[in-house]
Amino acid sequence: MRLLTGGESHGLAQCAILEGFPKGVEIDLDRINEELLRRQKGYGRGGRMKIEADTITIVSGMRRGITLGSPIAMLVKNKDHTVFATSVDTLEALSVPRPAHADLAGFLKYNEPDMRNILERASARETVMRVCAGSICKQFLDDFDITIASFVVSIGPVSSTMQPSTMKEIVNKTSRSQISAIDGTFEKKAIAEIDRAARRGDSLGGIIEVWAENVPPGLGSVMHYDRRLDTKIAAGIMSIPAIKGVEIGLGFEYARRRGSQTHDVIRPARTKKSRFRRDTNNAGGIEGGMSNGETIIIRCAMKPISTLGHPLDSVDVLTKHKKKAPPVRSDVCAVSACGVVAESMLALVLTESFLEKFGSDTQKEITQNYQQYLRRIIK
Amino acid sequence: MRLLTGGESHGLAQCAILEGFPKGVEIDLDRINEELLRRQKGYGRGGRMKIEADTITIVSGMRRGITLGSPIAMLVKNKDHTVFATSVDTLEALSVPRPAHADLAGFLKYNEPDMRNILERASARETVMRVCAGSICKQFLDDFDITIASFVVSIGPVSSTMQPSTMKEIVNKTSRSQISAIDGTFEKKAIAEIDRAARRGDSLGGIIEVWAENVPPGLGSVMHYDRRLDTKIAAGIMSIPAIKGVEIGLGFEYARRRGSQTHDVIRPARTKKSRFRRDTNNAGGIEGGMSNGETIIIRCAMKPISTLGHPLDSVDVLTKHKKKAPPVRSDVCAVSACGVVAESMLALVLTESFLEKFGSDTQKEITQNYQQYLRRIIK
Amino acid sequence: MRLLTGGESHGLAQCAILEGFPKGVEIDLDRINEELLRRQKGYGRGGRMKIEADTITIVSGMRRGITLGSPIAMLVKNKDHTVFATSVDTLEALSVPRPAHADLAGFLKYNEPDMRNILERASARETVMRVCAGSICKQFLDDFDITIASFVVSIGPVSSTMQPSTMKEIVNKTSRSQISAIDGTFEKKAIAEIDRAARRGDSLGGIIEVWAENVPPGLGSVMHYDRRLDTKIAAGIMSIPAIKGVEIGLGFEYARRRGSQTHDVIRPARTKKSRFRRDTNNAGGIEGGMSNGETIIIRCAMKPISTLGHPLDSVDVLTKHKKKAPPVRSDVCAVSACGVVAESMLALVLTESFLEKFGSDTQKEITQNYQQYLRRIIK
Amino acid sequence: MRLLTGGESHGLAQCAILEGFPKGVEIDLDRINEELLRRQKGYGRGGRMKIEADTITIVSGMRRGITLGSPIAMLVKNKDHTVFATSVDTLEALSVPRPAHADLAGFLKYNEPDMRNILERASARETVMRVCAGSICKQFLDDFDITIASFVVSIGPVSSTMQPSTMKEIVNKTSRSQISAIDGTFEKKAIAEIDRAARRGDSLGGIIEVWAENVPPGLGSVMHYDRRLDTKIAAGIMSIPAIKGVEIGLGFEYARRRGSQTHDVIRPARTKKSRFRRDTNNAGGIEGGMSNGETIIIRCAMKPISTLGHPLDSVDVLTKHKKKAPPVRSDVCAVSACGVVAESMLALVLTESFLEKFGSDTQKEITQNYQQYLRRIIK
Repeated sequence: MRLLTGGESHGLAQCAILEGFPKGVEIDLDRINEELLRRQKGYGRGGRMKIEADTITIVSGMRRGITLGSPIAMLVKNKDHTVFATSVDTLEALSVPRPAHADLAGFLKYNEPDMRNILERASARETVMRVCAGSICKQFLDDFDITIASFVVSIGPVSSTMQPSTMKEIVNKTSRSQISAIDGTFEKKAIAEIDRAARRGDSLGGIIEVWAENVPPGLGSVMHYDRRLDTKIAAGIMSIPAIKGVEIGLGFEYARRRGSQTHDVIRPARTKKSRFRRDTNNAGGIEGGMSNGETIIIRCAMKPISTLGHPLDSVDVLTKHKKKAPPVRSDVCAVSACGVVAESMLALVLTESFLEKFGSDTQKEITQNYQQYLRRIIK
Repeated sequence: MRLLTGGESHGLAQCAILEGFPKGVEIDLDRINEELLRRQKGYGRGGRMKIEADTITIVSGMRRGITLGSPIAMLVKNKDHTVFATSVDTLEALSVPRPAHADLAGFLKYNEPDMRNILERASARETVMRVCAGSICKQFLDDFDITIASFVVSIGPVSSTMQPSTMKEIVNKTSRSQISAIDGTFEKKAIAEIDRAARRGDSLGGIIEVWAENVPPGLGSVMHYDRRLDTKIAAGIMSIPAIKGVEIGLGFEYARRRGSQTHDVIRPARTKKSRFRRDTNNAGGIEGGMSNGETIIIRCAMKPISTLGHPLDSVDVLTKHKKKAPPVRSDVCAVSACGVVAESMLALVLTESFLEKFGSDTQKEITQNYQQYLRRIIK
Repeated sequence: MRLLTGGESHGLAQCAILEGFPKGVEIDLDRINEELLRRQKGYGRGGRMKIEADTITIVSGMRRGITLGSPIAMLVKNKDHTVFATSVDTLEALSVPRPAHADLAGFLKYNEPDMRNILERASARETVMRVCAGSICKQFLDDFDITIASFVVSIGPVSSTMQPSTMKEIVNKTSRSQISAIDGTFEKKAIAEIDRAARRGDSLGGIIEVWAENVPPGLGSVMHYDRRLDTKIAAGIMSIPAIKGVEIGLGFEYARRRGSQTHDVIRPARTKKSRFRRDTNNAGGIEGGMSNGETIIIRCAMKPISTLGHPLDSVDVLTKHKKKAPPVRSDVCAVSACGVVAESMLALVLTESFLEKFGSDTQKEITQNYQQYLRRIIK
Repeated sequence: MRLLTGGESHGLAQCAILEGFPKGVEIDLDRINEELLRRQKGYGRGGRMKIEADTITIVSGMRRGITLGSPIAMLVKNKDHTVFATSVDTLEALSVPRPAHADLAGFLKYNEPDMRNILERASARETVMRVCAGSICKQFLDDFDITIASFVVSIGPVSSTMQPSTMKEIVNKTSRSQISAIDGTFEKKAIAEIDRAARRGDSLGGIIEVWAENVPPGLGSVMHYDRRLDTKIAAGIMSIPAIKGVEIGLGFEYARRRGSQTHDVIRPARTKKSRFRRDTNNAGGIEGGMSNGETIIIRCAMKPISTLGHPLDSVDVLTKHKKKAPPVRSDVCAVSACGVVAESMLALVLTESFLEKFGSDTQKEITQNYQQYLRRIIK
């Protein structure tokens, strides 16, 4: 399965082609649009205007709501394009790079003093198509009862130690939260922190935890380093703009404990799904580069939004003189939105690994191969 | 550039083919062997016998010590093979999976009750070939003054906050350290901690910091998510067995601070290499998915060795009854060795990105293209 | 460089994303539209109605007519969609596979008795996006004086042995030909043959010769089998629907001659571009998997259009009884159109190989690297 | 599945890693060695000495004769290395490029006046590892009754029109033929032609036909151009040194006939394997980029051996003066050997496509998925 995305943030539209997706999967466009809406929301997003909701247009790959096995081409129009009646062609040049953004490295790499040409693509607007593709993958995974959800565990210095006990709890609580949290006390403090940052023209990042439940054991591979599931997940998550760290299960905490305190011992079991069970899931569902049947748990660190209301020191690349970075309309905090993107990347990686193991032609054939596998592993 | 590795830990040899490496690079095999030795050492490694040093055999791709542009095939013999006169064929079956290892997931995925067939490949022995390939890449990068080094910042609960000021300091101090540390006080405490774990039949992980200096700005890309340098680094690092977390620059700490406290402001400069400078390097040398000219700084978390002297609870997959995981000879702590592997993966990723930007046929041609680029960006 | 295409032939639009294309290339959309028009024309195309011309819409990747280095997303609307007010959703089912088409294999592979779901993607309509991408690549190659053209050398049993002496001759003559031929006598006979086939409800294929001039020596590689230029050209050409054979230079004729009669001897020369010359070009510009500086010459065989006015015997896959293949509106002969697609595929392959050798960031940087190379090889 | 090969023709050994090959396939090394022997034989091969037989060494990926699912690393020693006690290091420089070989293009691309450094890799010796990998794939395909064989249909101007009726006939007749032919009259004439060429210091090419029987319908894909089975076959075959043309089924002959004369009509059937049958197989087993269940038939054109006993005109690249190409020991005709390589490439492509459709973990699981598919398509 391959995904290419295109689109400048002030261009005509965002576009993607998802190739290698199986035939016969029923896709509900409303669910994709709901995911797009989740990605636009969250306390701390650029509040100064009512943004029209993103909506997907399917160009190819489906007929009567069902995938054809052919490439799924899709578009999401850039609303600003309409609202401001501008286009990428008429935007004015920017010659002062914003620290923490792609601007300076892009200027040097591409010999491009008008950094508008860099930032149009560097913008997190690009992630809109990953959410579309991710939502399609989630609907595929749904047919195998594999579900993915995320919640925010910290925003700036404020954090929560509450752990959900079920997937359902995550979905229920975050859907009622303004910052996609499961912990009401944390939420209040985090919102206060966002307000404080907003008043100062500052920005905040945070940490998101992503879960994937019911993933069968055996996705990914121990046989070659670039086929490992953790390799692919790390790549997928780190590819999200502003993500600077990713960990699986205990992650960095693993490094601090002894082996006897961390390794998830194996117990006999006799459930409908498994002959083995674990008391703990420190491994975050991955051992030896393969899913082990436990819930996959990923945590990722988002840095604060690069563009600040209170601009930072920089240099005009044309004159080489000091100049403040340009004030560009931006969010104060987008951590919960980032969670939707992280879910999408995990959905893409899991779908790809699923298709590698169980074939990739039609949903029905994949289901048969999958069920045959499940029957075997509970013997 | 592509790298495939093969080899069971008790098979004939480890093998790799590095394809797409340029012509005309002088390779010193002694340097590869020194890296292999670094990978074998470190306080806490399986001390009960004198292990013969790994040495590389070049099968193809070089003539008179210079690369030919053709695939570099290489071998490292498995010493145990000789020492114990065993071979993978004669080893006895293992039916009790070790927690935290690939065993159980591999059994389920491959329907393989003799987990010997899984663990032979799951073993960290496989990383020997990544070190060979990585050392070749380091020698290529050396010609452009790009150097890579690592140091251990924590082992189990013991950690150091000392930061090196130069690359040279890292190399000098770690070469005299038993655990690849730059901080003597930390080293003493860490060794005591390893001794304590050893006495208990326990194991330890830790955190490694990897630096790459003199990387030109503009490697990687902002234009597509899977071309980003951070994407590739995260994949490369997470692909190392036992690594459960990776972060770039401030990493998870980024999530705790405000934007104004973290973003590396840009200053005018007039050095031989750049017209810009930074006071800080929180970004760890990567902005917008591209190198920005600052030192690349990666941190990775290694979990404690999976195999413990004091075995953990498990289940015999044949009888489905409780059984202790088998006692397999192992190390107590291999964090410093893991640092050598992490350096190697970073060298591979940087070389690949370098070749993409500057061409890939011959060292001389690449150098010319590179110098032309450097001349332009300091204008 | 990567290209993904999407689009059903009666869906909303054809779509493509070309990723990895360099920054700074000036693109003339009129030239793309002209190529699209060339692809629609040719004596023998479905004549019963005036088809509206295909036109490209650029969704992303360009600003003010110049590429940004970001993915180029593009659309071509399906005109039938408007004309017939149908959509892929409302088309009726087809359960009788047409011989020589994807129908039967697609039915079996995808368990899909409504072969509409197969043929919508199997249609040669898909090649419209390859022409768009190919035209963009041609404009890139143009900046290096590399030009690509094709001419038809046979249609059904009628063939021409006339060989052009220059690229210009090909372009001039074929632009005035109804079947993209360079030989007037052949053209007359071929048109008569097409008329004869049309009257019988039959179809015709033919052979196309494609030239690429001014390709520098050294594209592709001798070092690994899948990096060879001939490997990539063969794949690109054979991937065109209805192509069943591809040959380079003398091709199959090579097999009939002795070595002494075929190998292009090397002579000293002193031109602005080379220190060597050949009297002959039997190799078709490729030796050892690399371009050798001579004109690249490819020939490809197109089978007759699969859909016939006079339907062939088939079987209803639902009843398993004999039934005639459905009469679907089609062309009698589309060989000249196929030539445009073949040029496009060659342009894609050459661009990709060019970027591998000379870097891929910006047109200016690539030009500098290229010129440096040219200066060296004429020393 | 991925294959990397390495090895200079006078280096230590040829080496390959085949990664992604499934677990649980029983491999008979004798069969690989027999294929290696077939590759060394054939009337017209360098006759002046008894060459020791190539034999494979498995470095990794197997245990007790069964694949482990891990990368299969393998070596074949270069016998000359032993015989002549030379190594690639001590061979003398060559500054006169041989026409039709990689020499001149390699010199220009790599700035390498000692073309020894090019030809060591350009040599057809490299194909030894493709035969090893291909033989492993053949043994995998065997378990599904898929068999591959080839026969020579022309050598220089001499050709045969005899068509075999079964696979068995090909195997039986070619195993008794000195040139891998199925036609005794043709064989006599061809041998006489080879003798004539040998006397003149000349060389000959020829045409090979490759068959793959029992390939299930539905391998490859109609959904994206680079997933098509014909795309992959064309690439695989054209990647063989000296191959200049490839065609499928009727191939170039298709271009000469009318649609009504060529398209394989579909008939109802009721066999154990299919509900459809064809009277003809002009498509060569591939329609719409997918296997259609008929025998896959490929034909490929090999040019005459580049190195002639009677040397051709060339230029010394150091002096830029005329000089004869160096006389290098070579074969007169190696068409039958090339057939073994072509079979191997087809085996690789079919195995890869098979794994994509039916999963890739273990032979047993793949078999179950495959049988489930077969049951469905004969309903």
